[in-house]
Amino acid sequence: MTIKVAIAGARGKMGMEAVHTIIKNEGMELVAALDYKEVGTTLAALDEFPKQYEVPIYTNFPELVRDTKPDVLVDLTNPHFVYERTKQALLHNVRPVVGTTGFTDEQLEELQQIAKDKEIGCIIAPNFAIGAILMMKFAKDAAKYFPDVEIIEMHHDQKLDAPSGTGIKTAQMISEVRNSKEQGHPDEKETHNGARGANFEGMHIHSVRLPGLVAHQQVLFGGTGELLTIRHDSLNRGSFMGGVTFSIEKVMNCNTLIYGLENII
Amino acid sequence: MTIKVAIAGARGKMGMEAVHTIIKNEGMELVAALDYKEVGTTLAALDEFPKQYEVPIYTNFPELVRDTKPDVLVDLTNPHFVYERTKQALLHNVRPVVGTTGFTDEQLEELQQIAKDKEIGCIIAPNFAIGAILMMKFAKDAAKYFPDVEIIEMHHDQKLDAPSGTGIKTAQMISEVRNSKEQGHPDEKETHNGARGANFEGMHIHSVRLPGLVAHQQVLFGGTGELLTIRHDSLNRGSFMGGVTFSIEKVMNCNTLIYGLENII
Amino acid sequence: MTIKVAIAGARGKMGMEAVHTIIKNEGMELVAALDYKEVGTTLAALDEFPKQYEVPIYTNFPELVRDTKPDVLVDLTNPHFVYERTKQALLHNVRPVVGTTGFTDEQLEELQQIAKDKEIGCIIAPNFAIGAILMMKFAKDAAKYFPDVEIIEMHHDQKLDAPSGTGIKTAQMISEVRNSKEQGHPDEKETHNGARGANFEGMHIHSVRLPGLVAHQQVLFGGTGELLTIRHDSLNRGSFMGGVTFSIEKVMNCNTLIYGLENII
Amino acid sequence: MTIKVAIAGARGKMGMEAVHTIIKNEGMELVAALDYKEVGTTLAALDEFPKQYEVPIYTNFPELVRDTKPDVLVDLTNPHFVYERTKQALLHNVRPVVGTTGFTDEQLEELQQIAKDKEIGCIIAPNFAIGAILMMKFAKDAAKYFPDVEIIEMHHDQKLDAPSGTGIKTAQMISEVRNSKEQGHPDEKETHNGARGANFEGMHIHSVRLPGLVAHQQVLFGGTGELLTIRHDSLNRGSFMGGVTFSIEKVMNCNTLIYGLENII
Repeated sequence: MTIKVAIAGARGKMGMEAVHTIIKNEGMELVAALDYKEVGTTLAALDEFPKQYEVPIYTNFPELVRDTKPDVLVDLTNPHFVYERTKQALLHNVRPVVGTTGFTDEQLEELQQIAKDKEIGCIIAPNFAIGAILMMKFAKDAAKYFPDVEIIEMHHDQKLDAPSGTGIKTAQMISEVRNSKEQGHPDEKETHNGARGANFEGMHIHSVRLPGLVAHQQVLFGGTGELLTIRHDSLNRGSFMGGVTFSIEKVMNCNTLIYGLENII
Repeated sequence: MTIKVAIAGARGKMGMEAVHTIIKNEGMELVAALDYKEVGTTLAALDEFPKQYEVPIYTNFPELVRDTKPDVLVDLTNPHFVYERTKQALLHNVRPVVGTTGFTDEQLEELQQIAKDKEIGCIIAPNFAIGAILMMKFAKDAAKYFPDVEIIEMHHDQKLDAPSGTGIKTAQMISEVRNSKEQGHPDEKETHNGARGANFEGMHIHSVRLPGLVAHQQVLFGGTGELLTIRHDSLNRGSFMGGVTFSIEKVMNCNTLIYGLENII
Repeated sequence: MTIKVAIAGARGKMGMEAVHTIIKNEGMELVAALDYKEVGTTLAALDEFPKQYEVPIYTNFPELVRDTKPDVLVDLTNPHFVYERTKQALLHNVRPVVGTTGFTDEQLEELQQIAKDKEIGCIIAPNFAIGAILMMKFAKDAAKYFPDVEIIEMHHDQKLDAPSGTGIKTAQMISEVRNSKEQGHPDEKETHNGARGANFEGMHIHSVRLPGLVAHQQVLFGGTGELLTIRHDSLNRGSFMGGVTFSIEKVMNCNTLIYGLENII
Repeated sequence: MTIKVAIAGARGKMGMEAVHTIIKNEGMELVAALDYKEVGTTLAALDEFPKQYEVPIYTNFPELVRDTKPDVLVDLTNPHFVYERTKQALLHNVRPVVGTTGFTDEQLEELQQIAKDKEIGCIIAPNFAIGAILMMKFAKDAAKYFPDVEIIEMHHDQKLDAPSGTGIKTAQMISEVRNSKEQGHPDEKETHNGARGANFEGMHIHSVRLPGLVAHQQVLFGGTGELLTIRHDSLNRGSFMGGVTFSIEKVMNCNTLIYGLENII
């Protein structure tokens, strides 16, 4: 069975990648694009896409559903209208796959209830990079056996925040299973401030910033005579596409709302 | 509660490490050593151990049990008599923790039955390195999402076989969940034979041998725009001790035979 | 002083990157482009470039020189006409920076002689990636002290040849200084063919191919109790631009032909 | 020609390794040991050494020289008497190879003058690990082309100081050739203090401490689209022996004082 997919946010960076990915996938058909304003009748009419992408663009969702009958709505827009659109999709029996954050707890609960009533799936994923999610999951698992852990995350030097969001998320996930422990020697001294990195509940996080880097992280676990390292390298936006494809397939086979790919991977 | 431990194979390389590890562990007491021949009355009497190791040595197991009432028998000998000794331990209600291979399927089934009847645990672990086991487990998990995988194992240059046992075991575990796939470009050519490594069901395994190396392995998974790497470095025999300690504690809380730490980690 | 640069091959992949790089560089001015056919009057007229790139395009080199008086001709075309064009540039007192191979020894000798007579510089660089060149240079240096070396090169899985050109070049450079040595244990056995990689004068080269990878290489040196690793990661074509800029500046200050950046780095 | 070697400090950890190394080396002969107190007549008489090490021990240096005529005195003692002993060796025409620090500038100048007058070599090496020295040397070289650099040094968690001495030495050597540069984005913010590591003249140094680690360092250089990494792993004391052997051979062929192996490697 071919899965019929509609997409919102096709003109964004992530969206463009997703359009190519869905069109190339043999098990999927891209039946429509949803846009908030009139930009053209088909993707083919836009500069961003090749001439053969004859996918109709709609600004009205009910109309889109009536004409093209999608199974799934992939939403890669920003957080502004995403709650309303996700609700609307569910009410039209279209399964949402949403790649953004910005839902309140109340909104998530309401969407959860609708998915349950309709008995259809809904996946909301703040992070579509399956590799990064596996890294965090494995790190959490390993921390049960190796309480001594340090995180080194490495990004391009245009990044403003340190540590990275993924670095902090990883440390949080580890701290859920790890007995609190102040690592390093009790008498260790920094002769230059900051050498030992950020201290997150006794774990140390180090942030490297260099031109040439993209987005990389390694989690190092040390035990007597051994070292276990879990590393993820994200080299371009393509790293999110595996998660998009996976979610489109998965959402067809579940009948509840899932928040975060770590819960189905 | 302190776990009372007896050890067989105390004079071997692994055994000596285990003696130190058990004696230092606050939750354990080393109550006896079992040897196949008369070597002295206590470990303290042997050159290999410090004077304060006042642990009696027995050559007769029923006597050892009667005098010292161990909860667990850690067996780090070679495969020769291990089946008989494990059976004997179970029949005396002493839980075996065995770090060797060499059991036949029939023997394992029989031991399994005895453990079940006696309702006590028995752990047989061909590999005690928790880090290495986690690496293999994570690799198997990751292969479900990333079918493209290569293994690089690196050892000292005195090693005779290539690939290493762990390298092959990892590939086997991956192939249980991975759809068979011939990796690399269909038209790729080796201008120098062997460049692409060993081909194991389409996966490639590379064996590096250099002085200075001990025992290391990395499993690399590649997807669009991303890379996930799981690496284990074993730097000395101490890397096995975590698994010994873990098994001694675990065997107290299970009432069946477990073969391979991967099944309880 | 601003260096006036002309470029041949502006519409190729490398060429486009170079156009952006030269235009952004404060010490350089892109004064002309040379094309083998009529494609437009300026780069701005072409789809590939932004409207503000008002750089005239010539098909006739003497005319280009007369009108725009370049100091340097950057040539990023294919090997076909590059010898004639390099000779012509030298004869017009324009310093060539050439990023291609395909010269015969006789041609190089002749160009060398002209550069000498004219007392102007000429740089021919089969590889502009400074990082890769440093890696090879350091590897050659290290091999004097560490005769045990293995090379792991890793590329995307669309690559056809194994080992990579850089992998072989590195091994060749090492073999110039290393006493020939058959590495590994004399009795080592491959239980799966190819595990130990390609054998290049006793050194072993391993070629990893995975989606997600771009172009990476590590050279590992092992000695008693220690390991020295030199690694280069090339993530996109931008990695060549440092070498282009470096060569444009360097060619202004030399008065001979230089073949290979390794000789001036 | 066999080089006749005497050793001071044979009973120390480094000394014991050196004794084994020299005895195994086919081009060297260990002719004597120098000790500050009466410990036995030969190394063979001591618990630390095998019975076949029939090397005489002296407490008086002139006597040692008269009886055993060494070419080289390897000194692996602590700094206390090393200046006097080195001077004495030179005055007796024995070439010193000294593996310690603690000389004043005046002392070094005086030793330098004696070596010059006597026309014999003298090597003083605060660090004998050739791999570590090559790492620092290569890092200094690379910094000329890649001004963006971060250092990650990793050690066992019993280490008290951070960053490590080698980490700081590497940064100092880089700063000799690098134009001062404050790395990272000018507006970058640490949400957790110390995440960006120690700031050494704009370079960042990160210190990882974990059980299982020994002594490791990587120096990362980032440029547009590329990354160059130089890494050294020291796994045991054996890593110093290459430098000891190298120095013994080298000191025979130089006629001046050399401070630091980086000057002859």
